Amino acid sequence: MAASALLKSRVRRPSYLKKLARAEDLIDLFPNGSYIGWSGFTGVGYPKKVPSALADHVEKNGLQGQLKYNLFVGASSGAETENRWARLNMIERRAPHQVGKEIAKGINNGNIKFFDKHLSMFPVDLMYGYYTKHKANNKLDVAIVEASAITEDGGVIPGASIIIEVNTASPSFEGLHDITMTDLPPRRKPYLIMAPEDRIGTPHIPIDPERVVAIVESDYPDQTQPNAPEDATSRAIASNLIEFLKHEVDHGRLPANLLPIQSGIGNIANAVVGGLASGGANFKNLKVWTEVLQDSFLDLFDSGNLDFATATSIRFSPEGFQRFYKGWEQYNPKLLLRSQQVSNSPEIIRRLGVIGMNTPVEVDIYAHANSTCVMGSRMLNGLGGSADFLRSAKYSIMHTPSTRPSKTDPHGVSCIVPMCTHVDQTEHDLDVIVTEQGLADVRGLSPRERARVIIDKCSHPEYKPILQDYFDRAEFECLRKGWGHEPHLLWQAFNMHKNLNEKGTMKLDSWDA
Amino acid sequence: MAASALLKSRVRRPSYLKKLARAEDLIDLFPNGSYIGWSGFTGVGYPKKVPSALADHVEKNGLQGQLKYNLFVGASSGAETENRWARLNMIERRAPHQVGKEIAKGINNGNIKFFDKHLSMFPVDLMYGYYTKHKANNKLDVAIVEASAITEDGGVIPGASIIIEVNTASPSFEGLHDITMTDLPPRRKPYLIMAPEDRIGTPHIPIDPERVVAIVESDYPDQTQPNAPEDATSRAIASNLIEFLKHEVDHGRLPANLLPIQSGIGNIANAVVGGLASGGANFKNLKVWTEVLQDSFLDLFDSGNLDFATATSIRFSPEGFQRFYKGWEQYNPKLLLRSQQVSNSPEIIRRLGVIGMNTPVEVDIYAHANSTCVMGSRMLNGLGGSADFLRSAKYSIMHTPSTRPSKTDPHGVSCIVPMCTHVDQTEHDLDVIVTEQGLADVRGLSPRERARVIIDKCSHPEYKPILQDYFDRAEFECLRKGWGHEPHLLWQAFNMHKNLNEKGTMKLDSWDA
Repeated sequence: MAASALLKSRVRRPSYLKKLARAEDLIDLFPNGSYIGWSGFTGVGYPKKVPSALADHVEKNGLQGQLKYNLFVGASSGAETENRWARLNMIERRAPHQVGKEIAKGINNGNIKFFDKHLSMFPVDLMYGYYTKHKANNKLDVAIVEASAITEDGGVIPGASIIIEVNTASPSFEGLHDITMTDLPPRRKPYLIMAPEDRIGTPHIPIDPERVVAIVESDYPDQTQPNAPEDATSRAIASNLIEFLKHEVDHGRLPANLLPIQSGIGNIANAVVGGLASGGANFKNLKVWTEVLQDSFLDLFDSGNLDFATATSIRFSPEGFQRFYKGWEQYNPKLLLRSQQVSNSPEIIRRLGVIGMNTPVEVDIYAHANSTCVMGSRMLNGLGGSADFLRSAKYSIMHTPSTRPSKTDPHGVSCIVPMCTHVDQTEHDLDVIVTEQGLADVRGLSPRERARVIIDKCSHPEYKPILQDYFDRAEFECLRKGWGHEPHLLWQAFNMHKNLNEKGTMKLDSWDA
Repeated sequence: MAASALLKSRVRRPSYLKKLARAEDLIDLFPNGSYIGWSGFTGVGYPKKVPSALADHVEKNGLQGQLKYNLFVGASSGAETENRWARLNMIERRAPHQVGKEIAKGINNGNIKFFDKHLSMFPVDLMYGYYTKHKANNKLDVAIVEASAITEDGGVIPGASIIIEVNTASPSFEGLHDITMTDLPPRRKPYLIMAPEDRIGTPHIPIDPERVVAIVESDYPDQTQPNAPEDATSRAIASNLIEFLKHEVDHGRLPANLLPIQSGIGNIANAVVGGLASGGANFKNLKVWTEVLQDSFLDLFDSGNLDFATATSIRFSPEGFQRFYKGWEQYNPKLLLRSQQVSNSPEIIRRLGVIGMNTPVEVDIYAHANSTCVMGSRMLNGLGGSADFLRSAKYSIMHTPSTRPSKTDPHGVSCIVPMCTHVDQTEHDLDVIVTEQGLADVRGLSPRERARVIIDKCSHPEYKPILQDYFDRAEFECLRKGWGHEPHLLWQAFNMHKNLNEKGTMKLDSWDA
């Protein structure tokens, strides 16, 4: 098979070009039950050609449910490939994170065995053999890596045959990466990173050439979605948060240029970063230490307030990518991509004193948060890096609208609840809860103090009396019994959720049983 | 005031001897509402004379509830001093951990505002000013440090006047410590520890002499309790666990001498360490990285299987201390004490690949664990270092008896429950659950797989059908609704706890509402 001139310019090792293959000729490498690793993180850098060829094969031959794979990706993959696999019932097992309607559906209807795991831990546990312990060789079978994203993967996958998809549709990202390998205990070393701009690795990922079984040219870019737009609520949340950061600077607990910022995905994150870019916030010389950059960070770069940003991936919108490529010379020296063990490393997050911000499903009055399971059961996307950051950050901040709409009530769901139906972040981890209503600073507060301030500052006016009534009753009952440290009415704690399920709104008439 | 010859031999800086005082003359340094730091960790190294003098003062003058303090200790303090303060209603606020009947009572009846916090984070958050943010100077007022334990404190307390109690009743521990100071972001540095025996600090804690306001001679040792004895249940748990470790060695996931071991306090921990010391386990050249050492580690040293141990404190029984002092020459070169930020550092725990083991209040079928709050509300002792270790360890292991007795039923409480009433460790953190019934290895399993193996391997025969019935019903209901990732019957999830509360046993007749 002949390589194009463009491909030749990207593949510098001649021996690799001898392995050039068509995706559809590689089907035999993927027998039923294979353990497969994909590159990719937060919907970029995932392989496209080979997974599509496998899906075509299943579709064409009616093999739905007969070719099923155990699929491991750094985080979420491209919705269009992974969703298609889910729709074709090709996924037996999946970890540690996903974004996509069809795959979520498969997880919640029992078709797909999914587990979510701290993104900082997932690659190391994979290397430990924890996820392949029932296999005779305790290793993955095949890894498919997109070349312009091989670095996002962040580790050599032990034992796997490797297929490299060289993406010639996007510009080369060469030089943008700092690659560190995963050594294992008892020989693991410190990450000697003292600032977001520190490089401790190499620009390329070392791979054993003898394990590379095929090279495939890939000719279309990551299919990203437009970013979630800001709205009045997310702007109000951002404004409360920025006021708090100013307060902390004024009281000497933060330097004037803050500390490295971590910000998640979504419209609140966009509004916060947008707020930092606007003149009002007036923070200069900011730095960012995060897992994924979205479009608003380009605004922050352009505002002149951002000195440096580092992450595992850049997940811009299609327009954002155009803007990024156009301004490459300007952005390139201020940007560094790292593997997820490093970007999400508790070691470094703690050392740098990161300001961590995230959006939950719900937060309870004692400052536990649910990041993953609606009604305690239905998986959204997974834990992602939320707990990596929220446990180890200097400031652990949960931002959420105080309510979300249900089908019949624009404020049918309160994001502040008596007790989370699923706990991903504990009361021992969170410092600040902020909604469009206000901000609760719970540092150093006992649970009963926390409940008062969270209900008072963060809950929506329509839910405030309901939550206060729960707390008052719980406090009375539990103190009376001598178990009042963190008062709960266990048999009624989920009544707001029950009301939502039965009547379409969490607005409970009464806590009487 | 004249110093004794013994005291002079312990206090080498002459200027300090000029500050020699009687504890009862220092009352004025402690006005109502003071923010006070004590040295001490897990019931050793706490100040004795000054707290007792303050308690005498309150008692003598009927000042109960009128002199109340905000009290911060590394972890738990001596029960006899702290309990007395609690009984005299002298504690307004307390963090981050406690052990003592009276103080737990005060916390659960609403007298004491308590919050528990990761022990690795607590000293740093204190330095950040997070716990004193409502005070004008954002700092502690006074710190009382026991000299032979000054190092357990693990950091210079900013702003505080310092009183040093020099304990002349115990031998000097000089040379046993590796002291590192807490620098703060953006100037925090890596802990360059690559093995349990690595020293990165100094043998003494540097304190600003101008801040030392008094020296008090203290003349009685730590009041420790006898260790909890092993029993058949804890031995069976230990045996299951040791078998698992052998299995991991056999499968190449652990070296033959394991990796550094963390073990908590209590009879299961004693049985596990005892099991490692006995001939049967046959692990040689072990190392220990933990937060507190109890008597069984002396057996492990004596067995010849333990090469090195490091911790923040040694909390031996009175007999254990005698044995330790007698064998000083033998134990001293193999032992190192560190500050709690270091012993509990997620950075180091992860790097070393520690085997972390802990006992919970309860574990649920999806592998969340409750470490702190009985019935979701009543505080036991606090989080301690459980989450520091269980999140970052290579092996995160929860060991528990499958049941505990209630007042009327020797198996009235199942430690395996459908849903934890309080979550301190999440499903994303635990690898192994072990009871006397068996061991559930949940690595890489989806929640529904986890539930099956935990119920099957770990639950008590009397509870197995009850838990299986809950899971089957929850799975059926949730899969039907398309939210079956982690199936729960939210409105019935705590029915076993309700049954316990109403009928004295968790043995539920039926899950029908």
